[in-house]
Amino acid sequence: MSEPAPPTAAPRAGRGSGAFTIEGTDGAARAGTLELGRGRVRTPSFMPVGTLGTVKALSSRDLEGVGAEIILGNAYHLYLRPGLEVLETAGGLHRFMSWPHPILTDSGGFQVFSLARISQVDDDGVTFRSHIDGSLHRITPERSIEIQTVIGSDIQMAFDECPPGEADRERARAAVERSLAWLDRCRRRHDELAADAAAGRGPGLLFPIFQGGSYEDLRLESLARTLEGGPWPGIAIGGLSVGESKGVTRRILETCEPHLPRELPRYLMGVGYPDDLLEAVGRGVDMFDCVAPTRNGRNGTAFTEEGQVNVRGARFARDERPLDPGCDCECCREYSRAYVRHLLVCGEILGLKLLSVHNIRFLIRLTSRARAAILRGDFESWAGGWLARYRSGGSRSEGGSPC
Amino acid sequence: MSEPAPPTAAPRAGRGSGAFTIEGTDGAARAGTLELGRGRVRTPSFMPVGTLGTVKALSSRDLEGVGAEIILGNAYHLYLRPGLEVLETAGGLHRFMSWPHPILTDSGGFQVFSLARISQVDDDGVTFRSHIDGSLHRITPERSIEIQTVIGSDIQMAFDECPPGEADRERARAAVERSLAWLDRCRRRHDELAADAAAGRGPGLLFPIFQGGSYEDLRLESLARTLEGGPWPGIAIGGLSVGESKGVTRRILETCEPHLPRELPRYLMGVGYPDDLLEAVGRGVDMFDCVAPTRNGRNGTAFTEEGQVNVRGARFARDERPLDPGCDCECCREYSRAYVRHLLVCGEILGLKLLSVHNIRFLIRLTSRARAAILRGDFESWAGGWLARYRSGGSRSEGGSPC
Repeated sequence: MSEPAPPTAAPRAGRGSGAFTIEGTDGAARAGTLELGRGRVRTPSFMPVGTLGTVKALSSRDLEGVGAEIILGNAYHLYLRPGLEVLETAGGLHRFMSWPHPILTDSGGFQVFSLARISQVDDDGVTFRSHIDGSLHRITPERSIEIQTVIGSDIQMAFDECPPGEADRERARAAVERSLAWLDRCRRRHDELAADAAAGRGPGLLFPIFQGGSYEDLRLESLARTLEGGPWPGIAIGGLSVGESKGVTRRILETCEPHLPRELPRYLMGVGYPDDLLEAVGRGVDMFDCVAPTRNGRNGTAFTEEGQVNVRGARFARDERPLDPGCDCECCREYSRAYVRHLLVCGEILGLKLLSVHNIRFLIRLTSRARAAILRGDFESWAGGWLARYRSGGSRSEGGSPC
Repeated sequence: MSEPAPPTAAPRAGRGSGAFTIEGTDGAARAGTLELGRGRVRTPSFMPVGTLGTVKALSSRDLEGVGAEIILGNAYHLYLRPGLEVLETAGGLHRFMSWPHPILTDSGGFQVFSLARISQVDDDGVTFRSHIDGSLHRITPERSIEIQTVIGSDIQMAFDECPPGEADRERARAAVERSLAWLDRCRRRHDELAADAAAGRGPGLLFPIFQGGSYEDLRLESLARTLEGGPWPGIAIGGLSVGESKGVTRRILETCEPHLPRELPRYLMGVGYPDDLLEAVGRGVDMFDCVAPTRNGRNGTAFTEEGQVNVRGARFARDERPLDPGCDCECCREYSRAYVRHLLVCGEILGLKLLSVHNIRFLIRLTSRARAAILRGDFESWAGGWLARYRSGGSRSEGGSPC
């Protein structure tokens, strides 16, 4: 297995410089800033997921209010609805959803494999039927880059094959090979579009994704061969948080961390429960996304310093305290637990929004506090204390696929 | 039939002075200000309906953003959920829902008769089963005043019997008699609570409601006998917008208007489609409430200057204009028709909120513009032009019960 090559040139052209500066480290944990044309992203960073051009239940102004610096859009979903013609007419997703700050898009690969009815996967791409109306579509690596360029995201993700967490070695190996071959095609198409767009804005930065399932040797090989295809402006760890145990997630992160170029922002896809996020920051990860805060919010579950809480519980019926006394979100500033519980029990839309706002703010505050702890050289002890408190009252079971 | 007695004393004590000042008139239309302890209400005024302690899909800050000066709460719904114990613990509805501005509550009568399964109606009160869980409850006029006092509303409504719009003369007559008897009991209980609460805040102002169905003579008799029981700080026209034709609504308003004391704010319950509201302003009404803006918003229908529009329509798929170019609401300031349509087609919560915000703002702006027209002595011509334009593209059929 070859040692990962260090980046030898500036990141590929894209929106913004893509410059990533590390301002402090503490053990493997890092505090940095990623400069994008539409704004800076301070890391560790949690990216709320705006599947269909809206982070569910929040407006773009709500997103600014919770301190989001970058959000995620799903190429697969946006390609199906509203579709590329609508996004092209609007001048891209930023204008469409009134969000002038950075956007990262996934490539569509994960959703095609998890949501669509696959008709055919071959070395060239994937033919699938829409989960909405059964219509037939085909996405190739080149097409994914074109779709993300119409969306206009600041960071594009390579089109990869992401096997489930329990995939056997043969399947994991095949996904590594296919993802590497597709990455090469993504990069070429991305280069072409960047060259074509010399006059205007080109495609966003392109982040590769490495795979390898739960197999250390495959992980390191996938990482090394991915880096050989670079230089890249960042790198994503794919195929985790897809059903494997948390022990496996941590082991893989620990195995890969020493081999990840220090200079690149590292994005762990699909992770975003508070404790998982903090564990991964301690293992050198900079960027995160997950639907957990919004999906849990809509189910009536709040993140708090003492773990997850089902806000529908009768014990909150006359509880006049804010959900989380230390939180500065709209929900905690303005309303009591009793009120939020009442809204949830009655199925009121405002309840879904307030809990979604709170949970996203909770994660963004958590990344800010982790960042501050890293910068003062105190991350390990701070995170240890935080996790012990959080887990003392937590109700979520271990394992499973949270996102 | 006796001529209505003029008010002979200050309105009964309640929260705020209850002083109503008329600043201008134009024909029957009036521009006034109602001073309440928690804020002033400029009339004509549209009150968004917060059935369960939330105007559906809007936060209290959203309500301030759309310019609401007073909102309505439903005693029946709040009595069932969250219940009086919760509201008492919270210190009333204002604190519970983080809305420090005026609130008017209906008495529960209308909902008991329209939503609950009635077990027994007698001269003393109503026994009914909850539409939520079938539990058995009893509301009397006294109990309604007590419930509204726990809620802490700034304006309470008398507990009345509201027959359907097609009620025959006998039924309308019976409702007039019962409502008058109940009004007397409401007033006594209200006086007792006001006396008890000398040290603290007493119950809100009490507005009587007159009935009489579609029968002019019954209307005038109900009005005169209601006023005899006064003085009152305001008066409500009940039993309209409950299934009768629009022609009947207008005729009854025109019949009653000369007999309504000029000094009192006049509240037409359950009216709030834009054209109906403007027609009633022209017939001397000052205050309105209706679920139309939020219910229509959640159904994908927007109020615009050219009538109601179904925003789901395919013609909006690539329409980059704001929903209503003259509107200053969050929806119209920030988003395109194409985006709002996309949200609605995908069932996104944000779409429901944005249309609800727009529709409420539309009605509040309409009352502001009506007020300005009255003050400059131009109401009739302005309203005529506005209605012609609105109806030129409108899609709502005439008649029926809008709220």
